[in-house]
Amino acid sequence: MNLERLDTPAAIIDIAKMQHNIDRMQTRMNALGVKFRPHVKTSKCADVARAQIAAGAQGITVSTLKEAEAFFAAGIEDILYAVGIVPAKLPRAMALKQKGCDLKIIADNTVAASAIVEYCKHANDTFEVWLEIDTDGHRSGLAPDDDALVAIGRVLQEGGVEVGGVMTHAGSSYELNDPEALAALAEQERAGCVRAAERLRAAGIACATVSVGSTPTALAAKHLEGVTEVRAGVYVFFDLVMANVGVCASNDVALSVLTSVIGHQPDKGWVIVDAGWMAMSRDRGTSKQTHDYGYGLACALDGTPLEGCALVGANQEHGILAVESRDDLATRFPIGMKLRILPNHACATGAQYPEYHALASDGSTVVWPRFHGW
Amino acid sequence: MNLERLDTPAAIIDIAKMQHNIDRMQTRMNALGVKFRPHVKTSKCADVARAQIAAGAQGITVSTLKEAEAFFAAGIEDILYAVGIVPAKLPRAMALKQKGCDLKIIADNTVAASAIVEYCKHANDTFEVWLEIDTDGHRSGLAPDDDALVAIGRVLQEGGVEVGGVMTHAGSSYELNDPEALAALAEQERAGCVRAAERLRAAGIACATVSVGSTPTALAAKHLEGVTEVRAGVYVFFDLVMANVGVCASNDVALSVLTSVIGHQPDKGWVIVDAGWMAMSRDRGTSKQTHDYGYGLACALDGTPLEGCALVGANQEHGILAVESRDDLATRFPIGMKLRILPNHACATGAQYPEYHALASDGSTVVWPRFHGW
Repeated sequence: MNLERLDTPAAIIDIAKMQHNIDRMQTRMNALGVKFRPHVKTSKCADVARAQIAAGAQGITVSTLKEAEAFFAAGIEDILYAVGIVPAKLPRAMALKQKGCDLKIIADNTVAASAIVEYCKHANDTFEVWLEIDTDGHRSGLAPDDDALVAIGRVLQEGGVEVGGVMTHAGSSYELNDPEALAALAEQERAGCVRAAERLRAAGIACATVSVGSTPTALAAKHLEGVTEVRAGVYVFFDLVMANVGVCASNDVALSVLTSVIGHQPDKGWVIVDAGWMAMSRDRGTSKQTHDYGYGLACALDGTPLEGCALVGANQEHGILAVESRDDLATRFPIGMKLRILPNHACATGAQYPEYHALASDGSTVVWPRFHGW
Repeated sequence: MNLERLDTPAAIIDIAKMQHNIDRMQTRMNALGVKFRPHVKTSKCADVARAQIAAGAQGITVSTLKEAEAFFAAGIEDILYAVGIVPAKLPRAMALKQKGCDLKIIADNTVAASAIVEYCKHANDTFEVWLEIDTDGHRSGLAPDDDALVAIGRVLQEGGVEVGGVMTHAGSSYELNDPEALAALAEQERAGCVRAAERLRAAGIACATVSVGSTPTALAAKHLEGVTEVRAGVYVFFDLVMANVGVCASNDVALSVLTSVIGHQPDKGWVIVDAGWMAMSRDRGTSKQTHDYGYGLACALDGTPLEGCALVGANQEHGILAVESRDDLATRFPIGMKLRILPNHACATGAQYPEYHALASDGSTVVWPRFHGW
């Protein structure tokens, strides 16, 4: 297949751009002297994860047990499930571990830690648990100096459960757009997570791994002393939010939505396309950033951005593309013409599709399946 | 299964509330003397569509050819594909029609109409085409008095293609919240669509069907003289956007997301749950309405809304529930506790799931599959 023949809407991965993004991140991680554990929640696609591992990634990060199961079935064993465990999910996690998956789970509270200990006794098996650290007030985790940190470590260790590491995610990096501020947040993320590990070690808890990361802080960090691994997800495709943060150019964005023109409203300067919010997602992540791209930035079929041509409105299967010059709208954007739309947020847009169409440099495409659900 | 045993996050349909919503709309349509053609893009679920047809719906509306194919396979023959046709999709539409599906397609421009005529000649078969009318400046369609309307009708009729009707969707009704304004828009939608049909008929084009609708205008219309059928989608579940529009109460919302508590940030009054934007969608439809519910309104497991307890933040698999009183947060919302979250926009939230769990009045649940993709 090629783009001219694909039915629309469709999610397109530009393989060369994706590979460029993968190589850029892996090269940076190698220079910083850390392992790299990509977050595969962005793609939920074994073909993409294989490209990340081929470039040097060691293990993966997942956000659901379904991802853990699917990527383990695809041959990846070293998996961090990076969302605080619900005790009711322990049997499903243990079933995967007992199939041979090197699954790590995380906790940030005594109730979950005690439940893990109890469950492991009951199951006559164990988990490797990492403790979640909050280094930027973003959502979950324990402050590096919280007394509960050592208390939770002790609950696990005394219960016979290994505390394998600490991990943090400086998600507030998405709100920045200044290289110095990003570098400062990367240092705050590093220092807080290393501090947590040191406190645990001082209390006699081994804590071998120190894991940090978000795409912006990973790319902004000047050094990662004391850190053993970095996690990042969206870098593999990048998106318009990341372009506004300043860690990529719009030309680096490897994911786009192929769409067809279905109508015009010449008086309003609107081109109607068949990519609505079902095709783009409802993500409006650029709405409070420097450049608001609506639901996405339109490109010609070859991927060249049409500057100033944003998807300003979206219903379920209708997108409204606002065009600066209204002259000859129906001639410049004829019915059936194919365009590509760069997404605000690659993780959210990808999630709308059962598969990607991976575009090679010769213009051919192949299907790369992705999964959804939990 | 029951809610206590389901893995989270999960999409729950309260069958009794759904049936109430279906009966309410069908009763109103019967009173107005029109046929009712529900828009099944909301559910993408054959079990839900069967309940709508059992209550009296005649035919369905779809937003994609995949929906048309899936619902035809489930036994529904009378289908309107209510997105302007892309000429490249005609072979797929014709393949479905030739299997016996009574598929109607729509157009609002001469290029598409000519392409339909040409394709039908080539295929030695025909389509029933409806013309799309714009009655509120919302997105697609021709103004009722546009000269092009009759011209397009003639292109089709002279090409041997039946003009079966006109259809419009007053989607700007979602932006209102006043009964009188809604009734006025419903009248504008009705009058504009009837006017378009009359112009076509005066030009010798039969145009048997006059189809209008959106959930708010369907419920607000005082009479529907000249209209033959109404379409509406989200009424089957309702959602918080519709509650703000004023056409349902939050207690009518039949779709909710089951979630588990995974953490706390007591200093901030935050309960962290495992329903993030992947579980809720990125839809922030209530953000500019009277009540902004963030990513959704939390309820107890039995469905009772916890007033003032909104999902104020969402990452991919983390939701941040802001609780008014911070006292005893970890006791009132213990780790593992299950809650239900009402969505802003049922169509967008449902789309995140491969299946619903339909909850009966005895507390049992069964799986109702739904599909995604195009």
